[in-house]
Amino acid sequence: MVTRLSHFFLRTLRDDPAEAEVASHKVLVRAGYIRRQAPGVFAWLPIGLRVKNKIETIIREEMANAGAYEVHFPALLPREPYEVTGRWEEYGDALFRLQDRKGADYLLAPTHEEVFTLLVKDLYSSYKDLPLTIFQIQDKYRDEARPRAGLLRGREFTMKDAYSFDYTDAGLDASYQAQRDAYERIFQRLGLEYVIVQADAGAMGGSRSEEFLHPTAVGEDTFVRSEGGYAANVEAFTTVAPDPFPVEGQPEAQIFDSPNTPTISTLVAHVNAVLELPEAGEWTAAHTLKNVVLALTHLDGTRELVVVGIPGDREVDDKRVEVAFAPAEVEPATEEDFLAYPSLVKGYIGPWSPTGAVLGEESATGIRYFLDPRVVDGTSWITGANVDQKHVHSLVAGRDFFGDGFVEVASVREGDEAPDGSGTVSLARGMEIGHVFQLGRKYAEALGLKVLDENGKLTTVTMGSYGIGVTRILANIAELNHDDKGLIWPAAVAPFDVQVVATGRDVTAFELAETLSSELEASGLDVLLDDRPKVSPGVKFADAELVGVPKIVIVGRGAVEGNVELWDRRSGDRDVVTVAEAVARLRS
Amino acid sequence: MVTRLSHFFLRTLRDDPAEAEVASHKVLVRAGYIRRQAPGVFAWLPIGLRVKNKIETIIREEMANAGAYEVHFPALLPREPYEVTGRWEEYGDALFRLQDRKGADYLLAPTHEEVFTLLVKDLYSSYKDLPLTIFQIQDKYRDEARPRAGLLRGREFTMKDAYSFDYTDAGLDASYQAQRDAYERIFQRLGLEYVIVQADAGAMGGSRSEEFLHPTAVGEDTFVRSEGGYAANVEAFTTVAPDPFPVEGQPEAQIFDSPNTPTISTLVAHVNAVLELPEAGEWTAAHTLKNVVLALTHLDGTRELVVVGIPGDREVDDKRVEVAFAPAEVEPATEEDFLAYPSLVKGYIGPWSPTGAVLGEESATGIRYFLDPRVVDGTSWITGANVDQKHVHSLVAGRDFFGDGFVEVASVREGDEAPDGSGTVSLARGMEIGHVFQLGRKYAEALGLKVLDENGKLTTVTMGSYGIGVTRILANIAELNHDDKGLIWPAAVAPFDVQVVATGRDVTAFELAETLSSELEASGLDVLLDDRPKVSPGVKFADAELVGVPKIVIVGRGAVEGNVELWDRRSGDRDVVTVAEAVARLRS
Repeated sequence: MVTRLSHFFLRTLRDDPAEAEVASHKVLVRAGYIRRQAPGVFAWLPIGLRVKNKIETIIREEMANAGAYEVHFPALLPREPYEVTGRWEEYGDALFRLQDRKGADYLLAPTHEEVFTLLVKDLYSSYKDLPLTIFQIQDKYRDEARPRAGLLRGREFTMKDAYSFDYTDAGLDASYQAQRDAYERIFQRLGLEYVIVQADAGAMGGSRSEEFLHPTAVGEDTFVRSEGGYAANVEAFTTVAPDPFPVEGQPEAQIFDSPNTPTISTLVAHVNAVLELPEAGEWTAAHTLKNVVLALTHLDGTRELVVVGIPGDREVDDKRVEVAFAPAEVEPATEEDFLAYPSLVKGYIGPWSPTGAVLGEESATGIRYFLDPRVVDGTSWITGANVDQKHVHSLVAGRDFFGDGFVEVASVREGDEAPDGSGTVSLARGMEIGHVFQLGRKYAEALGLKVLDENGKLTTVTMGSYGIGVTRILANIAELNHDDKGLIWPAAVAPFDVQVVATGRDVTAFELAETLSSELEASGLDVLLDDRPKVSPGVKFADAELVGVPKIVIVGRGAVEGNVELWDRRSGDRDVVTVAEAVARLRS
Repeated sequence: MVTRLSHFFLRTLRDDPAEAEVASHKVLVRAGYIRRQAPGVFAWLPIGLRVKNKIETIIREEMANAGAYEVHFPALLPREPYEVTGRWEEYGDALFRLQDRKGADYLLAPTHEEVFTLLVKDLYSSYKDLPLTIFQIQDKYRDEARPRAGLLRGREFTMKDAYSFDYTDAGLDASYQAQRDAYERIFQRLGLEYVIVQADAGAMGGSRSEEFLHPTAVGEDTFVRSEGGYAANVEAFTTVAPDPFPVEGQPEAQIFDSPNTPTISTLVAHVNAVLELPEAGEWTAAHTLKNVVLALTHLDGTRELVVVGIPGDREVDDKRVEVAFAPAEVEPATEEDFLAYPSLVKGYIGPWSPTGAVLGEESATGIRYFLDPRVVDGTSWITGANVDQKHVHSLVAGRDFFGDGFVEVASVREGDEAPDGSGTVSLARGMEIGHVFQLGRKYAEALGLKVLDENGKLTTVTMGSYGIGVTRILANIAELNHDDKGLIWPAAVAPFDVQVVATGRDVTAFELAETLSSELEASGLDVLLDDRPKVSPGVKFADAELVGVPKIVIVGRGAVEGNVELWDRRSGDRDVVTVAEAVARLRS
């Protein structure tokens, strides 16, 4: 069917929407693809829906190729299964909760592990039924604290979520690989660059987990990669710890006065002035051990102060901290916390103290003390003495102080070593467009999904969970495929294959545009025909550039000689050709 | 693609689900099409989703034929526009309401008039932009008090809702007709019998309104129709009022003792014993005027007692009462109400009284008094005297008492006259499967949707609203197309065109089944292949009958001679034919 702009429900806007922060949001609203209904909640207009449908079709085809079957779950789900797995609470404020008229609790599902697990439990009972992968393309809900960036982070968004069910670990590996391969094919077909990075399973509670990140400056995730092929998001990056040193023969720890040195930089300046300099020449932040006080709020609501010791030349990374202590919520300690624990002398906190206020679970304070993996036994540090205006130097890990465990909370830096020995890493920004998880048996155990194995014994099923953000992908494609004039869709997802623009006042041009459109349509192409009367060529061209159909045919003055102009939106090239030539080129 | 039952996510159940009340619900669950997630909330399994998609495709095609463009709105919407039109309150408990993390009010949309109106207001400004009809196929939410009957009345359900925008009444008529025609084509293609009945616009607040009812015993609506072509649901039926009679010369009203006659039947027996009999032979309930006290709760929360006078041979019909007094809620008066109004003498209430407690807005009681349309001036009644144990006869409307208006609340009966003079009506049960409304200017006025007309003057847009229940249609088709063995899909919506069943232990049959399936697939048919090894023919046949693919091919013992059995699921006919013949017949 030829879609005629004289009737089509499409209006372009002259100005960017006031609330838009990123390019994709601006251009999609301006070109008439989407309209905002509430923060992070959008309506799809006809031309936008066409692009969304094309993306969904590609995903469906590749899911079918991967042997996955499509189902469709409601968004509105009862509380109970999410209560069993703990996620009713764990999701915190990000979960939209509601009650029905009888006061029963419901949620708008942010993801569907629980009900897919229960469905399979309901229908399957034998290892012979497995493997199984089922998926849906469905609208999901997350009450984001800062819905921003248009479709890149919405509160209602369309996702393809798939779930695999196996009864052996090898089976899970195969199902995981099949989805992972399908994701690669999908992103390749969509022309969307991606990096597969190791990820932390986080709230999903699984084992193996990888993210598909699209490298982009507007990305919310930072990831690292080495030339040797290592890639991980910063949450999943693991530090290469040095080997321990012998503690024997190292000088004794010494307290020294350090007035007005509550920060690492003031401390470093001070020690370079008052202490004997090290062999390397001078003291640096890397020689100091910074002790950061964090307040954890556990799921049961209890609050706990902990201290983490990291090299003074690094910061605590918010995302890494979140993962390290999940599912507890973490925030910096407050003034009230310090008042409640006078043994924590702000600016002078250390793991060892002349006053006896030593950190650690087994110590007098009882405050748990976690160490950066670099603080191995035998390393010597300058750090706080837990006494106001005093620090201590030559404090040796494994001799003078001990941690309650290691945590990965320190920031990752350009040049850090990749954990797999593949060289040093560089940092980049990316946007998560897909995620594959090996959930393992967590959900099946919680919800009792077992099947009989070959020996007639009940065995718990092992699961995978695989998500692709459909609306987010669309926004990323828009981010990547636009210029200052508007969108430039890749052919695979373009709302129309060709836009035919009839210009001028001569009826010949309009008639030829109609004939040409019908001919192109008969060749199986989707045609948008700009047949608007009394609209100037300039406005029509500007609209065509904004809307972003990749191939444009201008039918104007040349129409009387049977000539049209072929315009490639991406390259900007314009060729005057005969109608026959235009049809032939557009068909190919 | 050939779908193989050996892998397909389909499990049939032996037993009906415990909670199922109607046949469609039972058979759709048992045949593996849907699974219940919560009361009135269902998940779609792969085979069910295929049927749902086929119905949606037919609807999309007919919407395109009617010139409507598809959009997609979120289910989660902000309160504000629904507050402006009053529906945030009017929907009462049927609306799912929730708050986001910031405490802002949201709803899960039961229908989208408000946001479609705002969208058009946002993008359109001139009469030249109109007419416009836009639609979506989307999941909707209503918190039904009694979600029952499976998909026939769900709390989450899929609907096609379309909205038309015009600037003239004639334009609205044309847009309405285009949707009405499209609905006829849709139901015809789906093979779903329908009756178009006049309906009350009810909560939608519009003018012209028709329902597409599917006549079925499980229907929740009662409708009337005459042989002459009139059809209406009972809410919309209007009574043919007799012409008024002259009051002159009629006998005077007379109070009489009527001990222990608080009901119509006791009253009729009493008057036949004590009063002079009428010309017709004896007094009947139709000679009496029954006065029913109702309590209205208005939108602002105030409560008002009203009395309605109807012929004693009729009952007050709940649905008609609801519509007559909408948007107020109506319930029968309580004992407390009667105690609060001692002038209402229960069992002896009348519009006229020797004590002066006359009903009517202008009367001493101030209680509004509404009359059935049959109570025209000059009609003479036996009715209560507002005095305990006393009635009055020869009480003449327009002489002795007056109403504050007429209301259509009395029950409709087989044999009542159709208002259009097309004869008497009969009653039937039906299920609403579609609804077309002329909303008029109500929403456009409330939300300020105006365009400039030909003279440059701002004019308010007039709208229509058109809904089809996709999931309800599917359930109705299932109600209509099943037997005691299972489903029998019409070809237009069947999940597969053909089911090929390989039986026996001979590998030849399985190989032939594969070849045949590929051949059918190459002819463009959707094939479900039952290639399950080690499953008995009996189980396979029973599953095929339950699942309901209309054409079945059994490949068994005859395979060695190149013969198969063609089985028509609806007629039950089985023919042994050659493979070539089978392919030829199935193609046609």
